[in-house]
Amino acid sequence: MVIVMSDVATDAHLSAVVQRVADAGGEAFVSRGVSRTIVGLVGDDELFATLNFEALPGVAQVMRITTPYKLVSRQHHPQMTTVYVGKSKIPIGPEFFTLIAGPCAVETPEQTLAAAQLAQAAGATIIRGGAYKPRTSPYAFQGLGEAGLKILADVRDKVGLPVITEVVDASDVELVASYTDMLQVGTRNMQNFALLQEVGRAKKPVMLKRGMSSSIEEWLMAAEYIAQRGNLDIVLCERGIRTFEDATRNTLDISAVPVAHSLSHLPVIVDPSHSGGRRDLVLPLTRAAIAVGADGVIIDMHPQPEKALCDGPQALTHQDVDELRDVVTKFPPLLGRKLASVAN
Amino acid sequence: MVIVMSDVATDAHLSAVVQRVADAGGEAFVSRGVSRTIVGLVGDDELFATLNFEALPGVAQVMRITTPYKLVSRQHHPQMTTVYVGKSKIPIGPEFFTLIAGPCAVETPEQTLAAAQLAQAAGATIIRGGAYKPRTSPYAFQGLGEAGLKILADVRDKVGLPVITEVVDASDVELVASYTDMLQVGTRNMQNFALLQEVGRAKKPVMLKRGMSSSIEEWLMAAEYIAQRGNLDIVLCERGIRTFEDATRNTLDISAVPVAHSLSHLPVIVDPSHSGGRRDLVLPLTRAAIAVGADGVIIDMHPQPEKALCDGPQALTHQDVDELRDVVTKFPPLLGRKLASVAN
Amino acid sequence: MVIVMSDVATDAHLSAVVQRVADAGGEAFVSRGVSRTIVGLVGDDELFATLNFEALPGVAQVMRITTPYKLVSRQHHPQMTTVYVGKSKIPIGPEFFTLIAGPCAVETPEQTLAAAQLAQAAGATIIRGGAYKPRTSPYAFQGLGEAGLKILADVRDKVGLPVITEVVDASDVELVASYTDMLQVGTRNMQNFALLQEVGRAKKPVMLKRGMSSSIEEWLMAAEYIAQRGNLDIVLCERGIRTFEDATRNTLDISAVPVAHSLSHLPVIVDPSHSGGRRDLVLPLTRAAIAVGADGVIIDMHPQPEKALCDGPQALTHQDVDELRDVVTKFPPLLGRKLASVAN
Amino acid sequence: MVIVMSDVATDAHLSAVVQRVADAGGEAFVSRGVSRTIVGLVGDDELFATLNFEALPGVAQVMRITTPYKLVSRQHHPQMTTVYVGKSKIPIGPEFFTLIAGPCAVETPEQTLAAAQLAQAAGATIIRGGAYKPRTSPYAFQGLGEAGLKILADVRDKVGLPVITEVVDASDVELVASYTDMLQVGTRNMQNFALLQEVGRAKKPVMLKRGMSSSIEEWLMAAEYIAQRGNLDIVLCERGIRTFEDATRNTLDISAVPVAHSLSHLPVIVDPSHSGGRRDLVLPLTRAAIAVGADGVIIDMHPQPEKALCDGPQALTHQDVDELRDVVTKFPPLLGRKLASVAN
Repeated sequence: MVIVMSDVATDAHLSAVVQRVADAGGEAFVSRGVSRTIVGLVGDDELFATLNFEALPGVAQVMRITTPYKLVSRQHHPQMTTVYVGKSKIPIGPEFFTLIAGPCAVETPEQTLAAAQLAQAAGATIIRGGAYKPRTSPYAFQGLGEAGLKILADVRDKVGLPVITEVVDASDVELVASYTDMLQVGTRNMQNFALLQEVGRAKKPVMLKRGMSSSIEEWLMAAEYIAQRGNLDIVLCERGIRTFEDATRNTLDISAVPVAHSLSHLPVIVDPSHSGGRRDLVLPLTRAAIAVGADGVIIDMHPQPEKALCDGPQALTHQDVDELRDVVTKFPPLLGRKLASVAN
Repeated sequence: MVIVMSDVATDAHLSAVVQRVADAGGEAFVSRGVSRTIVGLVGDDELFATLNFEALPGVAQVMRITTPYKLVSRQHHPQMTTVYVGKSKIPIGPEFFTLIAGPCAVETPEQTLAAAQLAQAAGATIIRGGAYKPRTSPYAFQGLGEAGLKILADVRDKVGLPVITEVVDASDVELVASYTDMLQVGTRNMQNFALLQEVGRAKKPVMLKRGMSSSIEEWLMAAEYIAQRGNLDIVLCERGIRTFEDATRNTLDISAVPVAHSLSHLPVIVDPSHSGGRRDLVLPLTRAAIAVGADGVIIDMHPQPEKALCDGPQALTHQDVDELRDVVTKFPPLLGRKLASVAN
Repeated sequence: MVIVMSDVATDAHLSAVVQRVADAGGEAFVSRGVSRTIVGLVGDDELFATLNFEALPGVAQVMRITTPYKLVSRQHHPQMTTVYVGKSKIPIGPEFFTLIAGPCAVETPEQTLAAAQLAQAAGATIIRGGAYKPRTSPYAFQGLGEAGLKILADVRDKVGLPVITEVVDASDVELVASYTDMLQVGTRNMQNFALLQEVGRAKKPVMLKRGMSSSIEEWLMAAEYIAQRGNLDIVLCERGIRTFEDATRNTLDISAVPVAHSLSHLPVIVDPSHSGGRRDLVLPLTRAAIAVGADGVIIDMHPQPEKALCDGPQALTHQDVDELRDVVTKFPPLLGRKLASVAN
Repeated sequence: MVIVMSDVATDAHLSAVVQRVADAGGEAFVSRGVSRTIVGLVGDDELFATLNFEALPGVAQVMRITTPYKLVSRQHHPQMTTVYVGKSKIPIGPEFFTLIAGPCAVETPEQTLAAAQLAQAAGATIIRGGAYKPRTSPYAFQGLGEAGLKILADVRDKVGLPVITEVVDASDVELVASYTDMLQVGTRNMQNFALLQEVGRAKKPVMLKRGMSSSIEEWLMAAEYIAQRGNLDIVLCERGIRTFEDATRNTLDISAVPVAHSLSHLPVIVDPSHSGGRRDLVLPLTRAAIAVGADGVIIDMHPQPEKALCDGPQALTHQDVDELRDVVTKFPPLLGRKLASVAN
């Protein structure tokens, strides 16, 4: 940590800073400049962060120089993590490219099965499907709840692929985990700390979507909440951030993939469906995700998008299966990856 | 609702749209233009919103023209609401300006009492204090939990003013409501729908902070979730939005106050402490909040900000009491309001 | 300047940094921490900024700790500046509140005169009016050019108040300056450096609007470009920034007023018309601007807003004159200011 | 255009709207709903846009339903454009992928030539290099001006490839065009309309960078300004937008490529150097750009980045040549494109 004293700081102000560092068992190195004095702190930065130097008189600025997360940081864990999902141990990690696909929302057994079969035909090895839907409007379809979880579990048995579904409340984690192979924490809940801690106690891998206005650092801090409770099977998911541009539902921050990979050992996937919010962008953004180095994508598919109860305009359908399979088969090898399959 | 057909839409596309409207019991008025055809829908817009017109072939754009919230809307409820807090029925509404103040976090009985007394001296009639603190880092102080609620309840008895505190998880609502006079939903939980529904069932007023990247419309939709469960004692709180500017912690969207007032009958207050994140901005932003027409402000105060466990750099302290009292006394009358007092 | 070495930096990397500092005539203080080493630089920060330390191997981060602007900084010029406009020397500065008002665009002599008279009746002492209009669409009204300048100059003679108008191209500065008392640089041109340098050579005061996505620091740097060429009669104008919120045309960053005042000695005014883009917000935002400490506001007025060629929906008109005069008369005294008048 | 009347609009308000449409030679179709009345306008939307309906009493909202640009729109020009640069007619368009590379700034003849040779070795067929540098700080290196243009012209002769350079002021266009094969309008000048019109009169192709906070629609409107003056040889360049995320210098809006392609027939390239601002992101973002369907990229290269006077931390250098050539050779064929070469 570096403390910059203001240009009107007195010697007494400086001494108070140095004393507080010493009291905390740290060392303070003072560099006096012509107009400013800088104090370099050596010791436990987590402890220093609690000492509230910003509030001391004469302090102009406090700059942290170590990352505030540890367990998910790549700094002391340089090897990238592979997360394995379900009984068939579908991998998400540096050697693979994993396609997760399925319906945005579980609506009926038939629709869910049909969507899962589309997904499988396109090369997916994990099926997505929402039973609890966090919706901006209280008048929109909110999901089937536990009935939806049952449908999803049935579909898993029928297609033989693990499933992922969203959990929206800490008190539901146990129930949801009993039906699914992977838990999803959605963008609106990225800083729902009670939920993060509860999925951290679950014995299932977790996909953590980036908050729509969260910095990459805050996203990794949210992952740290999960890791702290003992669950390190975390997959990060970039799903677009909120900006002034309204031609797309959100702005896919494609750079977040290599940036997160440089900071954390966790796998990073991309959601090209919710970031763009438009069917015509799903395949281009999928190609971009593979090319930038993502470990997978998660895609909405629906047998009849025009009848979907949720996010129909962005769902891929029958006519897109061939092209999607083509993309996820041909592009990953250029990056030294292979499409994750049940046989891995 | 208005549907704009794409310029390559066929007559069959148009008929399909009209048919879907008719099937839903609505009427469709078709205006054929030179390059575009427009369909105006008359009927139940909430129903239309579920019909997924965006996914029909030939549809270029769907534009909603009624507000998606009802209970909190001013459209059918032009008279502004006054919310009353606690046994002493402190009002928050169009005739008053209400000062809520106190410590960001409850740390000790002494600190909480001292902060509450500062607040009271400055003119506050509701005391704030956090027992559950949602913190970006898992390594930061997370609040005292129920022990903090007890301290807060004691302070309430000592100073004789109602208290407000944040609740962060749906399963805590009953417990928190048993200790406090008003519930706070924080910015990170504005779209935690399980929590919104639970506070909607509570018998205490709710202060709903705007999500740091939520539009005003989404904020009102979140309020609608609470109202739908039967609780209409809702106070909206603007606390700054996330933008590119980093000179301030957040960017206070001062225009949100008159905009929300024009759309909703609910009171709107401002948090000048968390929006700016700097002590030197608290008083200027408080003055701006009063002048723009806010129904109150909520301010961090601390007897020893340099020792605060949370957000010390923005807390007001002893030396600010006189000026704060001056501001909340002198400015509201220019807007035809009076400072809310225990005697109201 | 502070340089943070990466945790894999070698001694050779560190030596190269220290050497480069020494070569530039500076001193480097090295603080070795457990995981990181920090180098504090003492000397000429402007020179250091050109040395490209970020590109040296082993360097993790470079942090500037002095402000990058000098002439407009308050650091060495603590007394606030008052700028005087026109022959009648209308002041804009800390003791006054100055109302600038008039039509968005000069359309006809009659409309311009009528708008100026409305402005004067409301308490304005400087008349605004655009002859060159930067418009997003090439198909929108672009202003009358020199013919508009002549109309404006005539109106000045008739109402006896100085005028301000926008200049959009460096080659027009001399012409525009010959007709007007104050030059305006618009939001889209805040980083048009050729234009900034040219108005810096002009002998007229300049109003510099903040770029719609410029940080406060960049805004002050743009002012520094003007000051560097010898013109220190600069008034900063906050006019709203671009954010995700679309209920208003831009988001007025009301905090920018006290923040800019704390960093610079220049006066700061607010444009409540273009920030909100809605007539119903102009008066509330004007009150907020006064209360937060602005030195003035600039407001669109039009005798017949429904016929305005530019920005009609936000212009104030006859029925607003009384309330505007009321606001600019009653609020400034609470801040220890008086409304600027011709007699000052 | 669609006009939505407010729910308190009277019949007189509605008649006034209909009359104004009729006066302008258009037709108005009125759809009366339960709570709202909608007016559909048929006729010349550009004319309607000037009629200021928003300012009429009783009007709640005005919605445009045609694109505000024509010449650059794909609507009446479905075939994609290929722009040819220089004597060797290097193509930028749908069948090719074009690498533009070279130094951020022209510093010396040796550095410029060395950078151009690196670029050529990596597969570049157009050389970039800035002689006029718009810099945020007036104390930063501003470019060599005409001396830089001469160096660039010399390098063009030596390497045998066309060159592109930025022009920052309308009065410089003729001079700059006399030395270069393609003109660049930078992000800060995207709405410098005087400059846009002047490059619109030049006889050289223009690369138009997106403004850092401009919507895609505004970007296309800026292109329309150029096209209107007779120059349709325009290449759009996405270079990152300003958001709250500060891990990267800007946020590359990768979706802007397919979105702009869907709206306009103009080629779209990507600047992976300035969007990320970090050397380690240049290659991943280049791969993403190719994969999403961009027609080219423009990349900073420097023989000695640690000595660069501008943007050294992001420049590629000797050790990156092989990997860059590899990427631009192997990826485009998967999209049905080939690397543009002198022999095309």
